[in-house]
Amino acid sequence: MKFCSACGSGEVALRIPDGDHRERYVCARCGTVHYKNPLIVCGIVPVYEDRVLLCRRGIEPRFGKWTLPAGFMENGEAVEEGAQRELHEEAKATVTLGPLLTMLSVPYISQVHVMFLGTMSEPVFATTPESTEIMLCDEANVPWGEIAFRTVKTTLEHYFACRRAGAYTLKCATIA
Amino acid sequence: MKFCSACGSGEVALRIPDGDHRERYVCARCGTVHYKNPLIVCGIVPVYEDRVLLCRRGIEPRFGKWTLPAGFMENGEAVEEGAQRELHEEAKATVTLGPLLTMLSVPYISQVHVMFLGTMSEPVFATTPESTEIMLCDEANVPWGEIAFRTVKTTLEHYFACRRAGAYTLKCATIA
Repeated sequence: MKFCSACGSGEVALRIPDGDHRERYVCARCGTVHYKNPLIVCGIVPVYEDRVLLCRRGIEPRFGKWTLPAGFMENGEAVEEGAQRELHEEAKATVTLGPLLTMLSVPYISQVHVMFLGTMSEPVFATTPESTEIMLCDEANVPWGEIAFRTVKTTLEHYFACRRAGAYTLKCATIA
Repeated sequence: MKFCSACGSGEVALRIPDGDHRERYVCARCGTVHYKNPLIVCGIVPVYEDRVLLCRRGIEPRFGKWTLPAGFMENGEAVEEGAQRELHEEAKATVTLGPLLTMLSVPYISQVHVMFLGTMSEPVFATTPESTEIMLCDEANVPWGEIAFRTVKTTLEHYFACRRAGAYTLKCATIA
């Protein structure tokens, strides 16, 4: 942040505001404190029968790698709505939403990834500008070496472990 | 947002960027897109024996009302760390963290509240600038009419329901 978004001043500097204990971007002219907070990424493990829907990324980062449908939660929506919106934007698919499978903090990039189970009643999906290829993939054929993000790998591993155990639990963890 | 935080221009306006489908604040001079996303509030239901720790708010909003220790998650931390930090900042207490009890979307203010169970090994706590009074409260004495936030009320209700049922489950809901 180089300029104050409230008054346009260039006198924005990191300092600890009165009554706070962390450095913030503070405008020396108008006094506005500009907070930066973690982002939520919401997504789904879409399951049709015994297969999981994966998308090959058509955009950076990790162009060409495989991912679960997920993206940044938007203002004005619920987490569940965001997850279903991302599924539709990336794969033109719909699910009946199930339980939350993972809540993974990624502090080095200040993100929290929340991923739900979702059940597809039909194998309906389509490529999009964000996904150049989409597949329904059984456990034996997951391209583990080509997964785009560690949160996606952790979520897929947890999903398959739950399925083997016969019970879906929530995994909370930190990706360091 | 009145000025671009990247270049200081006053030519910032809401429009839909190319390849997007939502209005964003976009700078007409330098092209920077300024995203606004939901905030995470993280907190704890601190339990000592059969009582719950509640804080009387010493700050706005809801000055004087009762709340669970909770606050905005900060960049660079995990959700669990943020929850424990808020507990310490507001009540000088520590807990052994338990399962996630609630994940509540509050879309009309673009927040997601995540609340963990926490077990206190000793009844150690203290007032702080944020909390003028702190009590350990059994279920019969919860000041239900004086609870600061609906997410706190929902979380307390869910906690007591789980305790009666003998199993702690996650409640995901939207506060409309």
